[in-house]
Amino acid sequence: MKGAVLFGPRDIRYVEREDPKIVAPTDVILSMSATCVCGSDLWPYRGIDVSATPTPMGHEYCGIVEEVGSAVKNVRRGQFAVGSFFASDNTCEICNAGYQSRCVHAEFVGAGGAQAPLLRVPLADGTLVATSDVPSHDLIASLLATSDVLGTGWFAADAAAVGPGKTVAVVGDGAVGLLAILAAKQLGAERIIAMSRHQKRQKLASDFGATDIVSERGDAGVAKIKDMTAGLGAHSVIEAVGTQESMMQAIRSARAGGHVGFVGVTHGVEIPGQELFYAEVHLHGGPAPVRRFLPKLIGLVLDGTIDPGKVFDLTLPLDRVAEGYRAMDERRAIKALLMP
Amino acid sequence: MKGAVLFGPRDIRYVEREDPKIVAPTDVILSMSATCVCGSDLWPYRGIDVSATPTPMGHEYCGIVEEVGSAVKNVRRGQFAVGSFFASDNTCEICNAGYQSRCVHAEFVGAGGAQAPLLRVPLADGTLVATSDVPSHDLIASLLATSDVLGTGWFAADAAAVGPGKTVAVVGDGAVGLLAILAAKQLGAERIIAMSRHQKRQKLASDFGATDIVSERGDAGVAKIKDMTAGLGAHSVIEAVGTQESMMQAIRSARAGGHVGFVGVTHGVEIPGQELFYAEVHLHGGPAPVRRFLPKLIGLVLDGTIDPGKVFDLTLPLDRVAEGYRAMDERRAIKALLMP
Repeated sequence: MKGAVLFGPRDIRYVEREDPKIVAPTDVILSMSATCVCGSDLWPYRGIDVSATPTPMGHEYCGIVEEVGSAVKNVRRGQFAVGSFFASDNTCEICNAGYQSRCVHAEFVGAGGAQAPLLRVPLADGTLVATSDVPSHDLIASLLATSDVLGTGWFAADAAAVGPGKTVAVVGDGAVGLLAILAAKQLGAERIIAMSRHQKRQKLASDFGATDIVSERGDAGVAKIKDMTAGLGAHSVIEAVGTQESMMQAIRSARAGGHVGFVGVTHGVEIPGQELFYAEVHLHGGPAPVRRFLPKLIGLVLDGTIDPGKVFDLTLPLDRVAEGYRAMDERRAIKALLMP
Repeated sequence: MKGAVLFGPRDIRYVEREDPKIVAPTDVILSMSATCVCGSDLWPYRGIDVSATPTPMGHEYCGIVEEVGSAVKNVRRGQFAVGSFFASDNTCEICNAGYQSRCVHAEFVGAGGAQAPLLRVPLADGTLVATSDVPSHDLIASLLATSDVLGTGWFAADAAAVGPGKTVAVVGDGAVGLLAILAAKQLGAERIIAMSRHQKRQKLASDFGATDIVSERGDAGVAKIKDMTAGLGAHSVIEAVGTQESMMQAIRSARAGGHVGFVGVTHGVEIPGQELFYAEVHLHGGPAPVRRFLPKLIGLVLDGTIDPGKVFDLTLPLDRVAEGYRAMDERRAIKALLMP
């Protein structure tokens, strides 16, 4: 088969790769219904994360079960299934506590490169959530979104303790930030402040449930949030960027006793302990345990409650994956959907 | 009156000061039943926190209401009362959320210097908790402990989400760490691991409810906690020191999805964002909102359930306050009780 492979900074190519095979009896081979480009893919694409190249890329996936290892019990050939970027046994103590991304047997599914027509999914029984029927084509984009970008936004909202009556500020208007707005709305937030200076993203933020838009950043952004919350700051702040500036903006935008959920993969961030001490916020984040939320999120998509697939504003055939990276890198696209 | 005043590093003197006066109608003047030296007093004492000197010292207090401002309604002359080091109105949104130490009208009571026979307590209605009767002399030390050291240890345990069935590790064997053990025990923790290498403190840790003692520190301490928890780390970790080493030891001792409560006043701490991201712990701490816990803690002392006053292993007349600082600085004493 062919698949997306990163050869160096901004050098991504759709090239011949070996077909994935069942390696362990707990594996499944998935035939991709759709995949996409993640904001976190841009770190290595931009050469900021240096990894050994060539690297097969992509870690968001949904598709039809093509081949099943001998020990797999929960999914069968022909079923449609979604999984997270971390494979998890979903039975260990850490999984049972809802942290499947840190499962004691966690394995990065993306190592197999999901931007390809076929993908090996380890620990399939714990990792995949299959639907009872093969969903219609128009639901595929939204179901794919549950695999990471929505699951991550949802975890951010959960980590930020979003709930009824609360004011939520969202730092970052990428796809994760935008879907964190959708999550905050579903979780009953009273007021959702999107921090964005891009008109197209502001529009989508409003569509997903943002009640206010703040275009200021850094200290000015913090001051604006304080202004809007009687000087106190937001109850819940979601950080979906991963830079020093965004992290500090998030911490400073939260009220004392409030919650900051951070899911932007942190790059070069140092949190000053003394400021965090006196800020007295709750801070929680990390690689989203998407598997915790998958059954619920898939249900919300299937019953038409949410439409997270709207975050894809560019659809390309899989072999044009390089254009997807370029468009996201240049911020021409929010998120690129890739169809095999 | 006389009171403890810091003139410079390790130069604390019991000298003549002006008597405190009612300044605002919401003030109360308290006649001290007992006060004490806090671990955090050692920072300026050691010259690490540089503050303008001379500085009146002390912020832990309990005593008899001596004089009452015209607007005070909840306490009356002759009552025994305990308060926290932060005065709070206990009515604002932040107080109502349980963060009285960050009350919108918060004022540092210690500015008045509690290591003295008299103390002005601002916002008395919100700050003080009075008992219905004047308690007997043998309860004074434990009631004083609720004012900060126990309240802070309790907040740490609360911030670390201590609860039934959980394994708790406590980094720091100072008075706060020791009373965090007492709190963890009261909150139903199954296993409480005290990290201490001092025999006297280990003994008190066991008295307060520690089930295990770990004398290793840093990476070796972390490895030991992992060993004791099937490689996962503790559910809840309490940080009660405030240094880079203790903070990282705490974060690394917690399992993914676990909780770290930090109450050591952070000095020179920088938390690496990427490590925190992948550790995936909950992090919460700051100046303890002791007022949230005071009614409960006073009740537990009065009914004989807890005896936090055992943390005082040195009792001195107030005019020998300098010896209290010396003994704690040299770690000869865990905590010095001062009797006017």
